[in-house]
Amino acid sequence: MQDMTPPRPVPAEVLARLKAVTGPAGYLDDPAAIEPHCLAWRDGWRGEVPIVMRPISTTEVAEIVKICAETGTPIVTQSGNTGLTGGGQPHMGGAEIVLSLDRMTKIREIDPLNDSMTVEAGVILKTVQEEAAKVDRLFPLSLAAEGSCRIGGNLSTNAGGVQVLRYGNARALALGVEVVTADGQVWDGLRALRKDNAGYDLKQVFIGAEGTLGIITAAVLRLYPKPADSAVALVATPSCAAAIELLAAMKSAMGEAVTAFELMHPICFSLAAETMGHEDPLPGAGWRVLMQLDGPGPDGTLRDGLEAALAEALEAGLATDAIMAASLEQAARLWRIREDQAEVQQRAGAGIKHDISVPVSRIPEFVEVADAALDALYPGFRPCTFGHAGDGNLHYNPIRPEDWTDAAWKAETPAINRLVHDLVARMNGSITAEHGVGRLRKDELGRLKDPIELDLMRRLKTAFDPENLLNPGKLLP
Amino acid sequence: MQDMTPPRPVPAEVLARLKAVTGPAGYLDDPAAIEPHCLAWRDGWRGEVPIVMRPISTTEVAEIVKICAETGTPIVTQSGNTGLTGGGQPHMGGAEIVLSLDRMTKIREIDPLNDSMTVEAGVILKTVQEEAAKVDRLFPLSLAAEGSCRIGGNLSTNAGGVQVLRYGNARALALGVEVVTADGQVWDGLRALRKDNAGYDLKQVFIGAEGTLGIITAAVLRLYPKPADSAVALVATPSCAAAIELLAAMKSAMGEAVTAFELMHPICFSLAAETMGHEDPLPGAGWRVLMQLDGPGPDGTLRDGLEAALAEALEAGLATDAIMAASLEQAARLWRIREDQAEVQQRAGAGIKHDISVPVSRIPEFVEVADAALDALYPGFRPCTFGHAGDGNLHYNPIRPEDWTDAAWKAETPAINRLVHDLVARMNGSITAEHGVGRLRKDELGRLKDPIELDLMRRLKTAFDPENLLNPGKLLP
Repeated sequence: MQDMTPPRPVPAEVLARLKAVTGPAGYLDDPAAIEPHCLAWRDGWRGEVPIVMRPISTTEVAEIVKICAETGTPIVTQSGNTGLTGGGQPHMGGAEIVLSLDRMTKIREIDPLNDSMTVEAGVILKTVQEEAAKVDRLFPLSLAAEGSCRIGGNLSTNAGGVQVLRYGNARALALGVEVVTADGQVWDGLRALRKDNAGYDLKQVFIGAEGTLGIITAAVLRLYPKPADSAVALVATPSCAAAIELLAAMKSAMGEAVTAFELMHPICFSLAAETMGHEDPLPGAGWRVLMQLDGPGPDGTLRDGLEAALAEALEAGLATDAIMAASLEQAARLWRIREDQAEVQQRAGAGIKHDISVPVSRIPEFVEVADAALDALYPGFRPCTFGHAGDGNLHYNPIRPEDWTDAAWKAETPAINRLVHDLVARMNGSITAEHGVGRLRKDELGRLKDPIELDLMRRLKTAFDPENLLNPGKLLP
Repeated sequence: MQDMTPPRPVPAEVLARLKAVTGPAGYLDDPAAIEPHCLAWRDGWRGEVPIVMRPISTTEVAEIVKICAETGTPIVTQSGNTGLTGGGQPHMGGAEIVLSLDRMTKIREIDPLNDSMTVEAGVILKTVQEEAAKVDRLFPLSLAAEGSCRIGGNLSTNAGGVQVLRYGNARALALGVEVVTADGQVWDGLRALRKDNAGYDLKQVFIGAEGTLGIITAAVLRLYPKPADSAVALVATPSCAAAIELLAAMKSAMGEAVTAFELMHPICFSLAAETMGHEDPLPGAGWRVLMQLDGPGPDGTLRDGLEAALAEALEAGLATDAIMAASLEQAARLWRIREDQAEVQQRAGAGIKHDISVPVSRIPEFVEVADAALDALYPGFRPCTFGHAGDGNLHYNPIRPEDWTDAAWKAETPAINRLVHDLVARMNGSITAEHGVGRLRKDELGRLKDPIELDLMRRLKTAFDPENLLNPGKLLP
């Protein structure tokens, strides 16, 4: 059901009331200043708003939301605006406001003995990591946008990244949250507790809801001991299936020390060489795994353990070759090939991006079936598949055949999405493992989700945002 | 608001319809057979029902719930009936039915390469552990009732136990759930995924909801590599505060290998000696910590690491003495003193039980203030405090002074609860860290919870169970 009423621009008297909440320091109404908040940095989503509110405190957020609730003004909450699914950009028409939390950057408390830290939603992820490191702790959420994404957005999208295998998604790293509800009340759920069964665990409702159920203004984050020892290896495997067996073997041998287990198709390496000059460390090899182990030390423990485990893997036929990083610099070089994949694939030609997950055990089947189906339809397409195999999460990004134009390939997006997502659905997987729904995956979600689940989702939405003012038109099909 | 309508016993025609769903194998209507389902095993909760339904499948559960929804018949769902807060027992008056999941005991799937296992709600926790062990995996949920509690109840109460420090509560161990909703629909959320941001994470709503929002009929559980090496030590510390610093030191030195960190007041040891003949391994020492470390091996790695870490702790004044278990048998003996505390305290005289949590860093303050306040009011009371200090969770169980009668001490329960819970609330803690609310903590929850949070909880309840038929009168004040 589409709402066909043309959007009603936010009335001037509402804007005046909003401005009075913060004073001039707390809003942007100059079109040039507003524009970056209306654009997505990568994927072309754009919108229009008459104002970007930039409150400095939870109290200001609550006052803004109260005015919006009274006047029926929809709110698009933003923090770092680094999302990949159009969840953070407003619609066209000027009927919405953007509520940016980028000035709420206070670290409210660090409690090393509780391994916790209370931060406002606008703190940049990298700052969280750095503040944790200052007290000899680790905040393990780590992802490509960490220098500009903000923790409020990380929690609202339940961000993933490269260490989920060991530490879990953003959800697992939040002990408590502070939320401004759709009617402008402040729920103080900032409990720094590891165990709390006193009623429903409401924070779970708001985390991962993409700003559609409430506005997360602060959070208590879970910290970990900072690992003192680490080891990194790039391992070639005889097949994708062997890589998954290798994961199980590594977990058996090294336990939770396995922090990252990134699977990469060999084509990722040849393209990295062609487009960015990254030397292929294992030329001619098949599927590769970049793995990182971290532990408390003493220094070298993991290197020795990893060496032994890899020797066994070679013996067992789960690996054909391996390089262990002999220095931090070598480790960084191996990681760069992985981290540069977005750029590499950009340079290699148009790609059609998917962020899917299936049970870890079914990754080989997914890859085999999807590749074969695409190859039958589009001979010569380039399967630049990589991702967090330890979490069952692949960025399955087929790149156009060399002799196709970018435009022709892009035109196949709906067909290829449908093929990939149908396969994922048949395998009881997820069509958006870590990037969320936003606007990008809303229709596909509506097509593929069980109607009973959609009904439960709508009940939740109606319970917490009955007037549909919080990030309307996102996530819910 | 109390509903003052006298309960209307379940009409005979409803009972007849329910019986037709399962046939005679699927219900109990003999009073003697029903009685165990109406009683709590420890705390005196009791109720009355005309029938206990024992469906064998999710389809049967859904049919039963549909009949109940049509006829306005409230449902008390049970699995192992081992809860401690009266959440699983019906009320008096025969207006409710018990829905027992104890016949739904199928292991639907084990997927070692995905480290997951799909089980029905009635599978006994110990069976889950054993089935995992058969494929060389660990299911880490471990608690006193594990031989009789069932996984559906574990998930519905978000059970804790002795390994939460490392592996999290039951919530953290569920990848997916299957739920029968209040109107008798089956939501198949049995996804075996580690990452899934395709919409709201609905399983989080049902886990820990004590059967008030839906009925969990099956779950996909997360498995871990089975540790091959372990080490156990009992450590004496100069103070409760030192014990908490010791925890941080152990986490720094040993990382996630620290599986359990159980704090015990010295009186726990003297009473264990007096009442059950357990020899005190560290006579005369102060606060003790029983710690367990587990890891992938090789065998002895953790013993060496623990020995070094304890030597540093002794040097740093965080420990005054320590015993490392030299054998599995010695480790078991140390654990028995901890595990027998419920029995020890039963024998020592009436105790008033609390299951509280505070930030880990504030445990010493909590203990000091609570003990001093109680000692001022009740000189000679015995502070048999023990618990999962690594999670900030204490079982704070003051036992009567030796010269008081049990009855006189029990009469102080409301006053002592109020004192302890008020202190917990001031410290932003939880009055029920792992046992849940049920009926036991409902009034205290109503007294102490922020009205905004209670309002959000009620919205959730209304959204998912608008007719209040699922475990009514539990959890929600």
